Amino acid sequence: HRLIMASHSTGGRVSCGRDLNCVPEVADTLAAVAKLGFDFLCMPLFHPRFRREFELDPAKVRSGAHTRSDLLLCGRDWNTLVVGKLSPWIETDSEVETERRNSEAALVQELNFSAYLGLPAFMIPLKGPHCANLARVTLCDYNKRICLAIEVGANMPTNAVIDKWLGEPIKAAILPTRIFLTNKKGFPVLSKAHQQIIFRLFKLDAQFIFTGTSRHSEKDFRSYLQYLEYLNQNRPAPNAYELFAKGYEDYLQSPLQPLMDNLESQTYEVFEKDPIKYSQYQQAVYKCLMDRVPEEQKETNTQVLMVLGAGRGPLVNASLRAAKQADRKLRIYAVEKNPNAVVTLENWKFEEWGDQVTVVSCDMREWAAPEKADIIVSELLGSFGDNELSPECLDGAQNFLKDGGVSIPCSYTSFLAPLSSSKLYNEVRGCRERDKDPECHFETPYVVRLHNFHQLAEPKACFTFIHPTTDMNNNRYQCLRFSVGCNTVLHGFAGYFETTLYGDVTLSIKPETHSPGMFSWFPILFPLKQPIPVTKDDDVVVRFWRCNNGKKVWYEWAVTEPSCSAIHNPAGRSYTIGL
Amino acid sequence: HRLIMASHSTGGRVSCGRDLNCVPEVADTLAAVAKLGFDFLCMPLFHPRFRREFELDPAKVRSGAHTRSDLLLCGRDWNTLVVGKLSPWIETDSEVETERRNSEAALVQELNFSAYLGLPAFMIPLKGPHCANLARVTLCDYNKRICLAIEVGANMPTNAVIDKWLGEPIKAAILPTRIFLTNKKGFPVLSKAHQQIIFRLFKLDAQFIFTGTSRHSEKDFRSYLQYLEYLNQNRPAPNAYELFAKGYEDYLQSPLQPLMDNLESQTYEVFEKDPIKYSQYQQAVYKCLMDRVPEEQKETNTQVLMVLGAGRGPLVNASLRAAKQADRKLRIYAVEKNPNAVVTLENWKFEEWGDQVTVVSCDMREWAAPEKADIIVSELLGSFGDNELSPECLDGAQNFLKDGGVSIPCSYTSFLAPLSSSKLYNEVRGCRERDKDPECHFETPYVVRLHNFHQLAEPKACFTFIHPTTDMNNNRYQCLRFSVGCNTVLHGFAGYFETTLYGDVTLSIKPETHSPGMFSWFPILFPLKQPIPVTKDDDVVVRFWRCNNGKKVWYEWAVTEPSCSAIHNPAGRSYTIGL
Repeated sequence: HRLIMASHSTGGRVSCGRDLNCVPEVADTLAAVAKLGFDFLCMPLFHPRFRREFELDPAKVRSGAHTRSDLLLCGRDWNTLVVGKLSPWIETDSEVETERRNSEAALVQELNFSAYLGLPAFMIPLKGPHCANLARVTLCDYNKRICLAIEVGANMPTNAVIDKWLGEPIKAAILPTRIFLTNKKGFPVLSKAHQQIIFRLFKLDAQFIFTGTSRHSEKDFRSYLQYLEYLNQNRPAPNAYELFAKGYEDYLQSPLQPLMDNLESQTYEVFEKDPIKYSQYQQAVYKCLMDRVPEEQKETNTQVLMVLGAGRGPLVNASLRAAKQADRKLRIYAVEKNPNAVVTLENWKFEEWGDQVTVVSCDMREWAAPEKADIIVSELLGSFGDNELSPECLDGAQNFLKDGGVSIPCSYTSFLAPLSSSKLYNEVRGCRERDKDPECHFETPYVVRLHNFHQLAEPKACFTFIHPTTDMNNNRYQCLRFSVGCNTVLHGFAGYFETTLYGDVTLSIKPETHSPGMFSWFPILFPLKQPIPVTKDDDVVVRFWRCNNGKKVWYEWAVTEPSCSAIHNPAGRSYTIGL
Repeated sequence: HRLIMASHSTGGRVSCGRDLNCVPEVADTLAAVAKLGFDFLCMPLFHPRFRREFELDPAKVRSGAHTRSDLLLCGRDWNTLVVGKLSPWIETDSEVETERRNSEAALVQELNFSAYLGLPAFMIPLKGPHCANLARVTLCDYNKRICLAIEVGANMPTNAVIDKWLGEPIKAAILPTRIFLTNKKGFPVLSKAHQQIIFRLFKLDAQFIFTGTSRHSEKDFRSYLQYLEYLNQNRPAPNAYELFAKGYEDYLQSPLQPLMDNLESQTYEVFEKDPIKYSQYQQAVYKCLMDRVPEEQKETNTQVLMVLGAGRGPLVNASLRAAKQADRKLRIYAVEKNPNAVVTLENWKFEEWGDQVTVVSCDMREWAAPEKADIIVSELLGSFGDNELSPECLDGAQNFLKDGGVSIPCSYTSFLAPLSSSKLYNEVRGCRERDKDPECHFETPYVVRLHNFHQLAEPKACFTFIHPTTDMNNNRYQCLRFSVGCNTVLHGFAGYFETTLYGDVTLSIKPETHSPGMFSWFPILFPLKQPIPVTKDDDVVVRFWRCNNGKKVWYEWAVTEPSCSAIHNPAGRSYTIGL
């Protein structure tokens, strides 16, 4: 059964369809709407007045074709240009048994015929709150191919309601012609409030379906399409982060494991392009040098700075720039365990750095440092702060940090927020791997540019780590309570982090405090195996653990209100981070 | 580890690379070969004379970079334009332990650096017949990403040897400049024998790598590329079947189950386009009518013809054309179980056929026919003849066939031939499904346009069925013996069929007798779980069973010489055809 709108809006143009209730001549009608500029046609597959009383004479034995021949269009046209619509008389949830049974049979017949034609999508109206029998007949569960065509009315609901709906898997928006206003020149336009929702629908790559007769009849129907395309061309410009993230929306990635795996050249290349991160590091080193070396010692006091995990050298270069900016002396050790990146560091040293920098091809945890450091600088944070094992690495490095020495960063905190998203839930479902436990992929966090989702409450702080520290126990346990305030379904938790590099110099990927333009980290998603229904008076309570067995680190999580979930990832059975 | 040549030749152009042994300035060299028209550059990643004695001083403690910096090219260039080559001194199978150990360490270092740079491919020379230790270090098994770059020498081997090599997963051909001849105008050209192999390499979408210095020095190196592109533009034109099959080469499809599943509109549309099949059916019905109805009865004798599985009507139309051609009278029943296709038939009847054709929306096995037929016409054959259960369907239909009535087709025979193909074996390995037994996909036949394979012997007949028949037992058992005559590896069996429609009118997909231009069927492939080594004096013996439990039909197969395979698909555990 095909229920989705499969064709994507490609490039910059908006994909638009025309909705009709009666199509006597399909080829002619298709040509006519294409000429007006529409990309597809929505139409009933069976004659609206052709009743099929499957169990009753005379309909049961009526002879002749039930509907038009598939030969009226070539297969390619059916496959790409026509969206089917269910006959309007079908009421699969009718309380009248004959009507319900006839409706079920007709629904199945129309779905089968839609599949036979290979239509890209088939639209089924939801006529009220009760559609359990419809759901059974159409085999509804979470399914990527079931999407929403949302009708935009003349009166706008509250923003909270809009936020909620835009967290649903919207494929198309139906625009009745009656919601359009008329401007001075007689052209159709939309109110500011309607424009705002159209802009948000653009971001979700929604298609648009125009329904109703032209109410600006002196103008061509094209004027509706032209107005929508005008809005498309004049939508608010995306910011740097949105531009960088383009194409990654709701795309799940496994978190990097840079401690276990060696990163590739191109991964370093992408991270090094972040316009914010390294200038913040430079600023942090600068302030630290100014604090540690008074003006009168600037010629005599050479600070020892160790870059722990130097990669291809961006923190070395940021530190050198900071020293120049501060007019302070620096001796740098660039410690890197990836022998491939060490090739780059050695070439930097040969071409640029000279004796000021010592390249150390070694795991920082095994390094016998020849002297102690005033400052250790690292970028070991993941999307959830500590999830790339920065705490364990920096605890080890404390051995070669002077008393009173500084770690940049000096602290970091992870954050969590509950979310609802059929889209993301389905994406996680699709990650099932054949050689693993069937629920393994629900016990794994994902790095993802969260897009088609509804965040149910503000993020709250989860785990905090400080460097240097006397407490070497990096296990944690946190219980967080969120008020949600609407009827919804909980699918998982969004994770973020904030870090203080030095003093007031920070980095953040928490939406409320996000470092502007920084794109090095997408959020992290902790999924749930089973969606949990939440009513507006419920609180969501979640418990997170950070665990360590000396060889691996992992998280476990469980929801305990409004109902208990399973404990996810017990004993790290599905996901661990190798030390 | 990346060992493949990943970039594909797109469109019609041939993808060509330049092979160099010394590249002091990578960016300049890359620009220079691109300017000559090459698509990529093959070069060593480490200096050819830079020995790395990993366990010995002084090399062990030698300081400085081991090779050039990745920063010399952007990541995208490394990812798309550069193929790495292993340092020539590396001998992982050396009998000198120090040399072997150093070679292993250097090989791993170079593979890791290749992966770090994200190169599309890395070339490892095979220096002789003994490379077990190389295979262990590079984790060789059947793996889609390990391909062959074959060197074309000046002297051509026998066709048998060429056939064998072209069954291997060839990604690139290395062309030394010394194999080129010089034509009267001083341009490089190839001998006819070399041209033939180049044409065959084109069909495999091979890339070409030019090695050696220009031996036509008054001409630019471009002349080699231009000559290859000239051959490409003038390659033998593909026939209709090759054109139709374009893009489906070695692409595995599950056999249709039209008895259990309803076909889609577009599937019918494709099959109806076959230029040969329906004209052969028309010819068969024509000859049958001429045989059954003497000239003097042509006005009085109306033959009853039943199309069993009428689909969207092509056999009805072929029969009507045959009746007109024969000037004989025909009454047709078009029996079809797919209610969606019945819509098309009913529309045909309304628009064209009128009362001469009765449309019956019914499974032929359940149909209470109102009279008996002179001729039953069906197209129920699969790529292996009986594999879509034509025997069972037609046995049922015999009830309403007159004594002395005719079935078109009247007989069909399946054929099998042993084959070797790493490509196809890997494709089958990739079909593993997560919810099924881990070896299920090896116990299933596949419909596939066989392409990158080596057929080891001529096909032999397997199962034959005749209609009408008095023997309703459709179980079969066949043992086939093949002489192979070369050292090779057996990966499975290619299946074909021949059918006699009526008299001398036949259809065939067996290569030796293939109906010219007919594209309705690709061959079928029966895979083996474990490849079986075969020496040139061995025979291959295979046993095939056709089984039936009243609800399902299935095949089982096993090799018993030169060694025994497992029985594949015992009791139909992995693949059955539903009745």
